[in-house]
Amino acid sequence: MSLQVPQGFRLAGVHCGIKRNPNKPDLTLVVSDGPATAAGVYTQNLVFAAPVALNRQRTPSPAMRLIVVNSGNANACTGERGMADARQMARLSAEACGAKESEALVLSTGVIGTFLPMENIAAGIAAAAKSLASDEEAFASASRGILTTDTVQKVSGRRVKFSGGEAQLTGMAKGAAMIGPNMATMLCVLMTDAPLSPETAQRSLAAAVDVTFNCISVEGHMSTNDTVLMLANGAAGGMPLAGADLAAFDAALREVCTDLARAIPSDGEGASHLITIDVNGCADRASARAIAKTIAESPLVKTAIAGADPNWGRVVSAAGYSGVAFDPAGVRLLINGFPLYERGEPLPFDIKQVSSSIRENRDTSVEIFFSEGTAALRYWTTDLTAEYVRLNADFTT
Amino acid sequence: MSLQVPQGFRLAGVHCGIKRNPNKPDLTLVVSDGPATAAGVYTQNLVFAAPVALNRQRTPSPAMRLIVVNSGNANACTGERGMADARQMARLSAEACGAKESEALVLSTGVIGTFLPMENIAAGIAAAAKSLASDEEAFASASRGILTTDTVQKVSGRRVKFSGGEAQLTGMAKGAAMIGPNMATMLCVLMTDAPLSPETAQRSLAAAVDVTFNCISVEGHMSTNDTVLMLANGAAGGMPLAGADLAAFDAALREVCTDLARAIPSDGEGASHLITIDVNGCADRASARAIAKTIAESPLVKTAIAGADPNWGRVVSAAGYSGVAFDPAGVRLLINGFPLYERGEPLPFDIKQVSSSIRENRDTSVEIFFSEGTAALRYWTTDLTAEYVRLNADFTT
Repeated sequence: MSLQVPQGFRLAGVHCGIKRNPNKPDLTLVVSDGPATAAGVYTQNLVFAAPVALNRQRTPSPAMRLIVVNSGNANACTGERGMADARQMARLSAEACGAKESEALVLSTGVIGTFLPMENIAAGIAAAAKSLASDEEAFASASRGILTTDTVQKVSGRRVKFSGGEAQLTGMAKGAAMIGPNMATMLCVLMTDAPLSPETAQRSLAAAVDVTFNCISVEGHMSTNDTVLMLANGAAGGMPLAGADLAAFDAALREVCTDLARAIPSDGEGASHLITIDVNGCADRASARAIAKTIAESPLVKTAIAGADPNWGRVVSAAGYSGVAFDPAGVRLLINGFPLYERGEPLPFDIKQVSSSIRENRDTSVEIFFSEGTAALRYWTTDLTAEYVRLNADFTT
Repeated sequence: MSLQVPQGFRLAGVHCGIKRNPNKPDLTLVVSDGPATAAGVYTQNLVFAAPVALNRQRTPSPAMRLIVVNSGNANACTGERGMADARQMARLSAEACGAKESEALVLSTGVIGTFLPMENIAAGIAAAAKSLASDEEAFASASRGILTTDTVQKVSGRRVKFSGGEAQLTGMAKGAAMIGPNMATMLCVLMTDAPLSPETAQRSLAAAVDVTFNCISVEGHMSTNDTVLMLANGAAGGMPLAGADLAAFDAALREVCTDLARAIPSDGEGASHLITIDVNGCADRASARAIAKTIAESPLVKTAIAGADPNWGRVVSAAGYSGVAFDPAGVRLLINGFPLYERGEPLPFDIKQVSSSIRENRDTSVEIFFSEGTAALRYWTTDLTAEYVRLNADFTT
């Protein structure tokens, strides 16, 4: 993992007073010195936040300069005033960084249905623009400025060799629940100095997101703000990547996205287990995804893992209501490598041994095999603990 | 509410050792003295239990005699041996009651993936057949014999007047989670002495279930065993109901099913609130159902209510990922009668007042209005508490 900031990027994260704790940055700027190719993938929620509406109009793009992010307020369900506020965030950031308003993208995450405190945000943008840098410290502040209920920073990076030279790909993400306590969203910002055309960048990003950020859940509540953005400023030199060079970049992109995506349920609110669900033998990937998602979102599967209970009946019955047709007599199931169910019948197993294996490892593996085809998908989720409920029921006015 | 046992029915509930607690009956018999019309509605889970497979073949029917129910073991995911066990339950009960094997229906609820203890069940059937009666006590034992983690019995009944006389409709149900801790399922048995043809009985039952038992959830995990059965033995006399008589019966059936269906989330595991979700102004009932179900199954909506947090953003965003198209600017939302959101913008409201209203009432009302049409649906669910997690993560071997 290489975490350096790619050439031609500067970052900052500052506290402007949206979050109460003055030690927690809540406004982040990511600036490319020159115009960068930009790609974006967004929430599929019909009720989407103002910044999502703004960014959708602006990506893919051949010439974007910056991303401004605030945490602590999602600017969602805020109507026309919310749209005006998002545009104002773009305008203020662009002015502070010597760019045009149309060259800025905007991200927000936090409470839904409250208007942005624009005075704080304006002051934050001014302060952040003054402290832009490309060192480790700037990257750390920037990556902390996008967090909400996360307990750890989520960063990853890779070096990518291509025929014209070598590029850096570095990303930061946030998310601890699809929506945390009064908070919202999964966000990710990827920066690279690799040369990419807008169409290629968009296609590569969408492909990577499909098998990473779209394969995670905490509780399955889809946010109004989910966004993954990538800026590629080409500072590493050379022509836009294609062929084997592009394949090398895509592989690195998928690795970085996997690191960042896994980090979200791994840091899931109150989670005591990261559950990896491998669905195999399906007719197509959509079927595998539907089954994985249904298993991942069953509160009964999640509470069973929290309690170290190898209750495979809950997993099989969740698959059964996923809407995917399959032959129940062809199902095989393993938890942490122990075979528990095969050909529609329970297998004898040492329940204490399997339970200990779940209890003693933070990572839990659920592997389910069907007999319909060869499509497979990996999905990550959390267990469901009393602490999650406490965090999300904890009402503070 | 009239809870008498309809004419021509006898019941019993006994303990046969599937449940550990000897004071809890775990085997119930419901017997009609003469042949009864039978109708059934079953789980849509692709992985369904052996008794569901058996009953599906036997309903609707013009001549059924009895229903045998065991609690504590679901006889699900048990393969061919499970099917043989279900048929054996039917055969033993029929023999004990002087009926044919094909005149018996079978219900099971409890742990998935464990074979039935057939010796206990055989002894239970013999004992139950000897103690069949139609008094209050027999009805009480029978309605307790179908429970698993339920904390209260769920019974309801109505008198129905029709042109040929008067009939009794009495029902019992169980269910505290779609699947409780190692337990499973929602079950309901309805008995009536009203005269009904098989086709009418099936149609009336399906219509009632559609707006009652199919409008509840606890955590949204669909069971392998869900079943609603109705026996109508015609002992009240007269020709099969039709026209206004049938309409009167259908109204009573819907009332009884509403009572029993509401009782399930009301007794939901660990629940501190019964949430009634009214979805209005949709293009069709399927859209209203999809929206209601998505709201009802969002852990973030459920934890918010548990915490008395009028966090309407979670409700609106859940509607947004229900898959139903609607105009976000046309949405209006009320919680416990307080308007919180209208025309895509937050309304000012006294958060402490609304929070107190949620905290101080076990019943919570969520009303959401769309501008797409006139279809409406009422749905019931629970909140999500730390106690639910404790109950379902509590692993006991």
